[in-house]
Amino acid sequence: MTDTLAEKYTVDEYIERIIAFHGTLAPGLLIGGYMVDHALCNRPGGEFFDALCETSVCLPDAVQLLTPCTFGNGWLKICDVGRFALTFFEKYSGEGVRVHLDAAGLDAYPEIQNWFLRLKPKHDQDMERLIREIRTAKAGILGMKRVRVHERFVGKEKGGRIVLCPSCGEAYPERDGPRCRACGGTALYI
Amino acid sequence: MTDTLAEKYTVDEYIERIIAFHGTLAPGLLIGGYMVDHALCNRPGGEFFDALCETSVCLPDAVQLLTPCTFGNGWLKICDVGRFALTFFEKYSGEGVRVHLDAAGLDAYPEIQNWFLRLKPKHDQDMERLIREIRTAKAGILGMKRVRVHERFVGKEKGGRIVLCPSCGEAYPERDGPRCRACGGTALYI
Repeated sequence: MTDTLAEKYTVDEYIERIIAFHGTLAPGLLIGGYMVDHALCNRPGGEFFDALCETSVCLPDAVQLLTPCTFGNGWLKICDVGRFALTFFEKYSGEGVRVHLDAAGLDAYPEIQNWFLRLKPKHDQDMERLIREIRTAKAGILGMKRVRVHERFVGKEKGGRIVLCPSCGEAYPERDGPRCRACGGTALYI
Repeated sequence: MTDTLAEKYTVDEYIERIIAFHGTLAPGLLIGGYMVDHALCNRPGGEFFDALCETSVCLPDAVQLLTPCTFGNGWLKICDVGRFALTFFEKYSGEGVRVHLDAAGLDAYPEIQNWFLRLKPKHDQDMERLIREIRTAKAGILGMKRVRVHERFVGKEKGGRIVLCPSCGEAYPERDGPRCRACGGTALYI
């Protein structure tokens, strides 16, 4: 743990970036900053790494703000299983480090516990105290372990041919079948 | 179409932001900037809007750079059906405007056509000409229509209770069942 998060921003600067990008100072995004930092400090060697987020709530934005991995460049992958955890892994071997917010280790931080386990309605939570507790706790509320991600997250899907859908006329990847997935049954519009 | 994209950046400023956030000047992200701008100028009224991207490649980053919608704050939704299209919709009614890159309208822009339909290998594409064509074409290569998004994209999932998974011990949303989805069969690690 350094004075900056991910060797990029001080905590105050990161909070400014959170508000500019995400809209509000979401507690999960501040904790996410410490999670990204902790995972980066402990990740295996190798020049290139990808990120895997186990939730779509808040945490992906911490990765996008603090690392080169974004949703649109494909280096940030989401598999939303509802756990507040992220993994950085070497993009060819899949070997990496997983960091999660440890629900069992929050006794010393009652306001983080209230927020994370939703023990109090939102309007009864003390936001100032919550932020203070997060800044005090730093990586002390996180669990970490070495992992190897499932092969479906490793490597990159080949581009393949682009063709026009006979139903909608729009371009789509030929590997999806004889028509695009939207025309093939994935409901988007009514 | 104004001189700035989404009333936020000039095209040159936006290109700088693309490189800083996404890592490279991806042509799809530059086209995405014109798509976001075109959709914003034509979106229905209403204070709050959400975004729906029909691809996970490049386009989500244009939305994240130019609007308040990010993946982590939940206002950007992805349904990857492989079409280069985005929709901005009023978050309660689902009414919106959909903009797509019109593959059939690219005859005047051969380098965009080569890139979008992958008619040439990447190393044979003329990147400078491609960028120049995109800046010339602006919204002229886009299709637009009014839509109403499927109800599953409208409104927000209720929070609900958070419980600890009896298998992994981590916190997860109770609505997912008796154990978290990772322990319930979604393979993340090997």
